[in-house]
Amino acid sequence: MKNRVAAGIDIGGTNSVFGLVDENGKILVRDTLLTSDYPDPQELVHALSAKIDTALLQCGKNVELVGAGIGAPNGNYFSGCIEYAPNLKWEGLIPLAEYFADDLDCRTILTNDANAAAIGEMLFGGAKGMKDFLFITLGTGLGSGIVVNGEMVYGHDGMAGELGHTIIIPGGRLCGCGRNGCLETYCSATGIRKTYLEKSGKKDSVKIDSKYIFELAKGGNESALEAFRLTGDLLGFALANSVAYTSPAAIFLFGGLALAGELIFEPTRKSFESNLLKVYKGKVQILPSQLAESDAAILGAASLVWKETLSPVYPHEN
Amino acid sequence: MKNRVAAGIDIGGTNSVFGLVDENGKILVRDTLLTSDYPDPQELVHALSAKIDTALLQCGKNVELVGAGIGAPNGNYFSGCIEYAPNLKWEGLIPLAEYFADDLDCRTILTNDANAAAIGEMLFGGAKGMKDFLFITLGTGLGSGIVVNGEMVYGHDGMAGELGHTIIIPGGRLCGCGRNGCLETYCSATGIRKTYLEKSGKKDSVKIDSKYIFELAKGGNESALEAFRLTGDLLGFALANSVAYTSPAAIFLFGGLALAGELIFEPTRKSFESNLLKVYKGKVQILPSQLAESDAAILGAASLVWKETLSPVYPHEN
Repeated sequence: MKNRVAAGIDIGGTNSVFGLVDENGKILVRDTLLTSDYPDPQELVHALSAKIDTALLQCGKNVELVGAGIGAPNGNYFSGCIEYAPNLKWEGLIPLAEYFADDLDCRTILTNDANAAAIGEMLFGGAKGMKDFLFITLGTGLGSGIVVNGEMVYGHDGMAGELGHTIIIPGGRLCGCGRNGCLETYCSATGIRKTYLEKSGKKDSVKIDSKYIFELAKGGNESALEAFRLTGDLLGFALANSVAYTSPAAIFLFGGLALAGELIFEPTRKSFESNLLKVYKGKVQILPSQLAESDAAILGAASLVWKETLSPVYPHEN
Repeated sequence: MKNRVAAGIDIGGTNSVFGLVDENGKILVRDTLLTSDYPDPQELVHALSAKIDTALLQCGKNVELVGAGIGAPNGNYFSGCIEYAPNLKWEGLIPLAEYFADDLDCRTILTNDANAAAIGEMLFGGAKGMKDFLFITLGTGLGSGIVVNGEMVYGHDGMAGELGHTIIIPGGRLCGCGRNGCLETYCSATGIRKTYLEKSGKKDSVKIDSKYIFELAKGGNESALEAFRLTGDLLGFALANSVAYTSPAAIFLFGGLALAGELIFEPTRKSFESNLLKVYKGKVQILPSQLAESDAAILGAASLVWKETLSPVYPHEN
């Protein structure tokens, strides 16, 4: 029998990475390219595909590529296209799933990076065996993936799960989406930075990023601690509302801000529990993602393939 | 071949009703009982079951009962129990699905009334053929059912879809749930009544209900018109946020307040579109339910049975 692997490809604003991943979630080989080196997306696909072919040869003769999963900003599962991604230089609709299928001659599946990571959490992380959970990435923005009854929620148009763009403070901070008060303007690396600047009265400076604020908070800096508390307060409030939609068993937090540990988890959990509707109290866990930062993008993308290939193990029915 | 019927049973705070419904959504016979006549829920089940048996005989010898669907406040699909329903006199957990199964000797399915009506909309109403939609009941409170990929969202504990208890105005109006600012304290028959009293400065009175405010608004009363505008503003805002969860193709409004037609739909749609994230704009319809007020509870409950019986017609896959 052949050793089956899935390619996990993540297209980012800066880097594009891929890895070959076996069905146990082991990354056998990985490589990376600079996205900005490729003004034409099809050229990037050619370059990545050539590297994937080389990597397959590295893995030996007995290897079969069962499919390629792709995580990308604004990646649409249904259309297989990147749709008007604000953080990429390519404009309009990019049929990325089709491009990869042409080059790799295998099944390809595209979705956005947060959805991909959510499926990675389900297959290879802390959500193993869970059928209903939320996955939240706290990066530059706030991304999310919603899993209901063991299946990703894509919505009628493939664009479901944009919790970062629920408005939690009407008339609040200006968001990159052009509206005001979106969750991600408060609860993200960018958001906590703004909160810290407001609380400390410090002048804006490039050295002030979420890591720096984390270091200050660990050292007992009151403005930094306050920034974490306020961020957790709002995140807990927003997550309590989100439970009223899909009643998940757990909410996983991933990304730079989640690495701050109890500094962010403690105020989030406290606000979450106090804002929950009674029927949900004490039932929903807020947990750190069990995916390593460095592996999550590749594992998530590859798990798009394994999710559908291994479906007898993850049945669609109750 | 036998004529197959499903029993649709709705347990309400005041009345409990049932009907025998064929697979085309035709109600063949119906009857009602006063819920409050039965301090013991099992006695109500006995009485309703006896009436259902009689109704089956009325339908002739060639009739087969394929199952009974039950809609009830706080009805849990997974446990088959009514769980701590604040509007019923029975306390704690009531294993209603089991009671009916014992008496009727058929398959029984329980869920809350809004979920049941949502499935009714999918099988027999305006959501035929839709796989992703929201169903909102604007009654005394605000109930909701979420359908994703053709399936009801129940969540890990059977309690998903409580949009009426998402907090839209922190520190806002006191809700029956004990928290403040829940959507249903603004967008419901009770909510618009409060808004009208606030705007008009009128003294509280039993004659002021949502119907009365509707009549005033039709007559051009400025406070009543303002109450509808403000209710629609907030509802549109909340629904725009809800799209970011499951990206539905449509949102159906049902219940007394929805019967006010454009008085409520126009401000709701306007606020909805202006608050939507760009990727969703112009894609999501806000529509009146196509279920008749008098039939919805019975049809919804019966459709719980037909949904699962007719599943080849409504496949679980994309």
